[in-house]
Amino acid sequence: MTDRRGDLFSVECPTRHLLDRIGDKWTSMTVKLLAERYPDSARFSELQRAMPGVSHKMLSQTLQRLTADGLVTRRVEDSVPPAVHYALTALGRSLDEPLAILREWAETHMSEIERHRASAGR
Amino acid sequence: MTDRRGDLFSVECPTRHLLDRIGDKWTSMTVKLLAERYPDSARFSELQRAMPGVSHKMLSQTLQRLTADGLVTRRVEDSVPPAVHYALTALGRSLDEPLAILREWAETHMSEIERHRASAGR
Repeated sequence: MTDRRGDLFSVECPTRHLLDRIGDKWTSMTVKLLAERYPDSARFSELQRAMPGVSHKMLSQTLQRLTADGLVTRRVEDSVPPAVHYALTALGRSLDEPLAILREWAETHMSEIERHRASAGR
Repeated sequence: MTDRRGDLFSVECPTRHLLDRIGDKWTSMTVKLLAERYPDSARFSELQRAMPGVSHKMLSQTLQRLTADGLVTRRVEDSVPPAVHYALTALGRSLDEPLAILREWAETHMSEIERHRASAGR
């Protein structure tokens, strides 16, 4: 029996689900911020301010998933009130480049795609 | 006033929504199939067979969006019953490489991420 778990075109493939998680806009923005603007670490509130439009719930979920996946570390500082710091792991940093390439494609071709969508009547 | 429509970190940025659309697994799989396995064109049924687990509705939506965005062409052949052929445009083909880089990252790091998730109790 062949192991098809790494084959994107197999129903059992866990990479499928991973792709949906890492390809979404909030993940992309969080990774970019932690890689570029906050290379040491960032507070929840700093990330939220840097991402206008993100809800508290959506940012929490994004950070929880990134932490569970081993892409981000969460460190609670023993202060009053306790401060929580988020930082990329080495694995998380390695995701910044593939995501940057995709973001760049999206930014470069956005106008062209908007023209298509307008003429398709959407 | 600065034009912030191309700035991912602005609420008005349409690139945000584009990123969610192109980063999802069905889009990634459709683009890969049309770029690599069906460089001329593919029928709906061929794509569906090649993507086990995709529902008729989900594949229809994915192809409609890709068509409206100018990434895929839809050609109806004058036959009985009419045959519908899908093919990538030049713009669609240009998306294959950034998506391939992201898929490759996901495939390479899947096991490591699964280990993290298991130890995080998820």
